[in-house]
Amino acid sequence: MKALILAGGSGTRLWPLSRRNYPKQFLKLNGKSSFLQKTAERLLKVISIDDIIVMTNSEYKFHVLADLNVMFNNQHLISNPNHSPFANIILEPVSRNTAPAIALGIKYCVEKLGCKKDEVLFISPSDHVIKPADKFAEYIKLSEEIAKKGYMVAFGIKPTRSETGYGYIQVSKESAADSKHHGTNMEHDNITDNENNPLLPPFSKGGMGGFPGEIVKNNYFKVEEFTEKPDTETAKKYIGEGNYYWNSGMFAFCIGTIIEEFSKHAPKISEMLDMSFDEMVANFKQMPDISLDYAVAEKSERIVILPLDLYWNDIGSWDSIYDVLDKNGRGNIKMGDVVAIDTKDTLIISDKRFVATIGLDDCLIVDTDDALLIAKRGETQKVREIVNKLREDDRKEALEHVTIYRPWGSYTVLGEGERYKIKRVVVNPRERLSLQLHHHRSEHWVVVKGKAKVTIGDRETFVHENESVYIPELTRHRLENPGKVPLEIIEVQNGEYVGEDDIERIDDAYGRE
Amino acid sequence: MKALILAGGSGTRLWPLSRRNYPKQFLKLNGKSSFLQKTAERLLKVISIDDIIVMTNSEYKFHVLADLNVMFNNQHLISNPNHSPFANIILEPVSRNTAPAIALGIKYCVEKLGCKKDEVLFISPSDHVIKPADKFAEYIKLSEEIAKKGYMVAFGIKPTRSETGYGYIQVSKESAADSKHHGTNMEHDNITDNENNPLLPPFSKGGMGGFPGEIVKNNYFKVEEFTEKPDTETAKKYIGEGNYYWNSGMFAFCIGTIIEEFSKHAPKISEMLDMSFDEMVANFKQMPDISLDYAVAEKSERIVILPLDLYWNDIGSWDSIYDVLDKNGRGNIKMGDVVAIDTKDTLIISDKRFVATIGLDDCLIVDTDDALLIAKRGETQKVREIVNKLREDDRKEALEHVTIYRPWGSYTVLGEGERYKIKRVVVNPRERLSLQLHHHRSEHWVVVKGKAKVTIGDRETFVHENESVYIPELTRHRLENPGKVPLEIIEVQNGEYVGEDDIERIDDAYGRE
Repeated sequence: MKALILAGGSGTRLWPLSRRNYPKQFLKLNGKSSFLQKTAERLLKVISIDDIIVMTNSEYKFHVLADLNVMFNNQHLISNPNHSPFANIILEPVSRNTAPAIALGIKYCVEKLGCKKDEVLFISPSDHVIKPADKFAEYIKLSEEIAKKGYMVAFGIKPTRSETGYGYIQVSKESAADSKHHGTNMEHDNITDNENNPLLPPFSKGGMGGFPGEIVKNNYFKVEEFTEKPDTETAKKYIGEGNYYWNSGMFAFCIGTIIEEFSKHAPKISEMLDMSFDEMVANFKQMPDISLDYAVAEKSERIVILPLDLYWNDIGSWDSIYDVLDKNGRGNIKMGDVVAIDTKDTLIISDKRFVATIGLDDCLIVDTDDALLIAKRGETQKVREIVNKLREDDRKEALEHVTIYRPWGSYTVLGEGERYKIKRVVVNPRERLSLQLHHHRSEHWVVVKGKAKVTIGDRETFVHENESVYIPELTRHRLENPGKVPLEIIEVQNGEYVGEDDIERIDDAYGRE
Repeated sequence: MKALILAGGSGTRLWPLSRRNYPKQFLKLNGKSSFLQKTAERLLKVISIDDIIVMTNSEYKFHVLADLNVMFNNQHLISNPNHSPFANIILEPVSRNTAPAIALGIKYCVEKLGCKKDEVLFISPSDHVIKPADKFAEYIKLSEEIAKKGYMVAFGIKPTRSETGYGYIQVSKESAADSKHHGTNMEHDNITDNENNPLLPPFSKGGMGGFPGEIVKNNYFKVEEFTEKPDTETAKKYIGEGNYYWNSGMFAFCIGTIIEEFSKHAPKISEMLDMSFDEMVANFKQMPDISLDYAVAEKSERIVILPLDLYWNDIGSWDSIYDVLDKNGRGNIKMGDVVAIDTKDTLIISDKRFVATIGLDDCLIVDTDDALLIAKRGETQKVREIVNKLREDDRKEALEHVTIYRPWGSYTVLGEGERYKIKRVVVNPRERLSLQLHHHRSEHWVVVKGKAKVTIGDRETFVHENESVYIPELTRHRLENPGKVPLEIIEVQNGEYVGEDDIERIDDAYGRE
């Protein structure tokens, strides 16, 4: 069994924490693991590290590597931070929704990993919360069994509120395990349903997925209908009827099954599956921009729903975040330097600043270096309007944070004025920036931590803590950290123009830097 | 007539904008005039600049001068920013409430300005809003006339809400102008009450102070009783009865009157009035810590209340600020870079950061570089609890802003780390810092604007834009701006200790710097 983690999304519904250059899957709330890290941890309970493939794009690649490497550094599994134990990283050349991404992942499995058609692939978003992880691991194993029967397994979540932001899936009231299998060209006869316990039929004990404890292996269902996003009334009706589920965005299927289903329902994608992996990448922007749900799942006759009896949250808004986190006795969640007086049922996240609240109820407060969001709970779908407005106005607050992560480290703009800009630049051990020059600015570098190897013109020098160098405009230069601890410099730029785009790269340290 | 502006208060009820090192009277909301500047503007309508005295302390002196000079620079009255047209500035050596401050002001008037006993002194707080200013000017003139009769004039504000944070003054229902004057040793017989209009008796047309238009000269009243801060029920009762006022904190009296009243009711203060001005300053900390209200006004038989029929606001809380400022059609006040969605009756002040609100009602949001306040309207008296907590924890957010103003200019900490600190330092034209040295840090200075004259050891050099100098630890140095535009430098400090207190001053540029 392989797993494909989809980590190329650029969602900004958690703005101002998530931004286009730093989307949701990489967020580390309260300094803890990112959603991507938690996703990998869950999968690693049943799938080995070599069988996990991460799909992302070149812009996010180093975030993915940083997150995954840190996980393993913490576990002392590897010692070299430049070597990732996650060897299988695919870069989408452009973003084309889930169906093309999954097709590319399939091609990778077949061509690069030598997967056969009866190998099961588990598809996982990278930015959801699912717990407990052990129980989820059991469901992954169960989904493999079901997938081996030729089914395309989707994972259903029992609705807990009349959510209007999701589509609902109506399922047959009869367990799919009791019906005849669909024809398939794979051997799955070794899978038997002898775990079927007549004492625990579907819909017993509080309805599907509502039973506690042990997972019932035949508790999966054929789909009656995929619905559009309902209004509140309709959503309530669905919940009342009991056989409606939210689609969690996860899937499990044999590689052979999905290839057949692409061929049947998505001929354009199927056609490209005939190419080699490299050709697929080269032609990726020809792919239709379509989700696996629309392209295949809603049309396939082989789809079954496996209801998950556990906590699931797609973290689609700050309201979801409030829902998922532990609250204190007053219903507050406080992260950072916060004093709350007469405040209840409120989420307060502050990165650095001291935040004081008085007399608030049901609010969501998210403070970052350059942008602050204060919203009433239940209204956070409107964050989208704010991000759209920032984009229309071409403002960087929609795009990036004050600290910008690069493959070699990071930089933070500390201050700007007419004709000057001040940055703190951190270069990771053994990393270097490109050889570059600026037409309109000169730079003063003061080393405040570590040791820098600096190239200016033809000269190479080492600059130590509390030493400075000057780089005149139009002079080739390079900053490098030859050491084993992070290098930190303060850069004071001076000139008639200090925009980021005044940079001419003579060599290219990272293929894009 | 003289006016004494009391500008030594250190109130933090408008935290996080007001802090101990930058109190309310200096706040410039939305970049407009400070409350002190507006106070001076109002008084200048009837009192000449040479007759205005400002009482403050050494810590706030340069804020006072900066505010007042800017006013006059704007009006092109003076051209040298180092010369203040406000020549009469008294520095309290310690803070001792209003009665001692006023006694010191009296002594200044008599000894330094040669005032006689029949000269009227008008006492004004520096941090209130009063409008319209022209009408207020008429009241100042009227109060001079009444004071000349031997009265101590307090200014009453008709209560507009059942405020429990103020004391109330109950006045006699009979105009004081109709009663016999109190004995006094001053000539005031030239003041007649022939403007008394029988068609406009006190309490006609909506009660005292509620009449529109012209100011009625005999409309002032003897006091029945000073009350303690009431509960809401009592406050409502007072408002219903119509002859209760808030005390605005302003007074007008002849110098002879107040000297007599100090003698009668505050013997300790009166005793010190026998000293010279310099002796009073030297012994100022012996003064009782008491307000003029408690020391004299509540006991004096010569006190009368002049009701003011105009807008008054003591800016005692963020709720008061909401009250005083112009709102848009949704009841919002937005200052700074703000987007408000489905938000109403809310005040949003942001210095730099982008602020987005969604679905808020009746909130007060005040964002600064290092601290953020979000409070429900009506609850902002609790700001005090936050400031107290910050003080208990010995935190700088109660004391000072990220940008710290000094007599020579300002500095802003842009960033800090282990063993280093980065500052932006602005030196005003023709100003200089003390000659100093540091034991534990060296400094790199990069000039980003203007021209610096730098002394390092025995060497004096000029450092131009885009040039840098290095100051080793234990080396005497001085920074000076010899030019006519502000000098701006970026200072990178490096060393085993980078606290502000590692400074040895060899000379003292400003008596305290």
